[in-house]
Amino acid sequence: MRILITAGGTSEKIDDVRSISNHSSGRLGVAIANAFNAEVTTIDYVTTKNAQKPEGDLITLHFINDTKELADTLTNLLTTHSYDAVIHSMAVSDFTPATSLSEEQLQTALTGLLAKNNGESISAAVLKNWLAELESDAHQDKKISSDTDHLFLILKKNPKVIHLIKKLQPETLLVGFKLLVDVSFNALFDVAMKSIQKNSADFILANDLTEVGPNEHHGYLIAKDGSYTEAATKKEIAQLIKQAITTARKNK
Amino acid sequence: MRILITAGGTSEKIDDVRSISNHSSGRLGVAIANAFNAEVTTIDYVTTKNAQKPEGDLITLHFINDTKELADTLTNLLTTHSYDAVIHSMAVSDFTPATSLSEEQLQTALTGLLAKNNGESISAAVLKNWLAELESDAHQDKKISSDTDHLFLILKKNPKVIHLIKKLQPETLLVGFKLLVDVSFNALFDVAMKSIQKNSADFILANDLTEVGPNEHHGYLIAKDGSYTEAATKKEIAQLIKQAITTARKNK
Repeated sequence: MRILITAGGTSEKIDDVRSISNHSSGRLGVAIANAFNAEVTTIDYVTTKNAQKPEGDLITLHFINDTKELADTLTNLLTTHSYDAVIHSMAVSDFTPATSLSEEQLQTALTGLLAKNNGESISAAVLKNWLAELESDAHQDKKISSDTDHLFLILKKNPKVIHLIKKLQPETLLVGFKLLVDVSFNALFDVAMKSIQKNSADFILANDLTEVGPNEHHGYLIAKDGSYTEAATKKEIAQLIKQAITTARKNK
Repeated sequence: MRILITAGGTSEKIDDVRSISNHSSGRLGVAIANAFNAEVTTIDYVTTKNAQKPEGDLITLHFINDTKELADTLTNLLTTHSYDAVIHSMAVSDFTPATSLSEEQLQTALTGLLAKNNGESISAAVLKNWLAELESDAHQDKKISSDTDHLFLILKKNPKVIHLIKKLQPETLLVGFKLLVDVSFNALFDVAMKSIQKNSADFILANDLTEVGPNEHHGYLIAKDGSYTEAATKKEIAQLIKQAITTARKNK
């Protein structure tokens, strides 16, 4: 058996000295690798420098920083090897910095927007054009000047990396992850089912940040038919995922 | 001798799952601690979870995440102990997230700004008021929704933590740090001299990111009289700082 695990959290550069990161200790990824590694599984493990890492002779670590590098590494691995399952637990940045403006630059940009708009109220289309212009005007700052009381960071949405997985390898089993904050079970379940459909996932591990701590980690492993199992720790989550994949492979 | 060292890079929370960080491996701080530790110095070492850490019986580690925690920890230490020197090498965030807006929210906010302004061009004062309003309207998002193509992050300037040091302990020797990117020696020198004046620093270690690597680290230790010495590695920088402090204490 050969599987691909992603774990840790991506970082997107703002300039040469700053970045935006998604928090993730990487401990859940380590628990998952350990659960599989115990039974002679070859593991490609994609992670980040700061995350905790699993150890094992059959584990190959691949390091990435941002979503672009993640997409490149996954594309490379998925077109080179055939995986029985892909467990995509990495916390991936939804946004990447597109440009930044000082107060003075924002004032100029808004004045330009107003002049073009002849004082009429700003439609969504006018706003989108204005943003596209700001983005194309963006000079890549090596280090953003701190000589402004407020800084405006315009972030643009990243393409969803999870989409790649079934596109490149339709036969693999895909386990995705959804982390929400302080929501009901119903909200978690709905978001998980939507993610299963959008990403052709076989399972989603849905969890709530308010129920994640160093010693507890409450989560639901939700299957595409809507059935689910529940776990209280990272070790239990790892076991649930391993069992679900083992069973799904047998039934194939 | 008792000294205080700060090292690593601060992170500012955007929401419960994301933050903005200043990069810093913490290796320079470790080199400085090692240079002093070799000669029986008691060291309070303020750093972050992800940074490399020095080891030694006389070293006490203090962990912080953001600039607020850094200011609190420094205030506490500087009002409890008397330090022969404070070496403030931490990469401190200039800005902290104040609020964020989706495209739709920005559209509403801009429309409101326009209506108030009767179609006139936007002055700096009008813009500042608008920003203050947006900031006071900000609801603390637990996790910012990714349901927008662009996200606008408004960051506000942090109070400079380095100001605290001589205010709380005028008699200590202060070594500050300035990191610029791809500038001339003259630009580095000017920024360092300004920092010495603004922060009542005794020395500034000025360096350029383009000359910082794992094995090389070019830097100038600039004294308040404008004299300076030069180093090519982290170890050399650490030695320069130790020598400068030792000499300055003798001449006191």
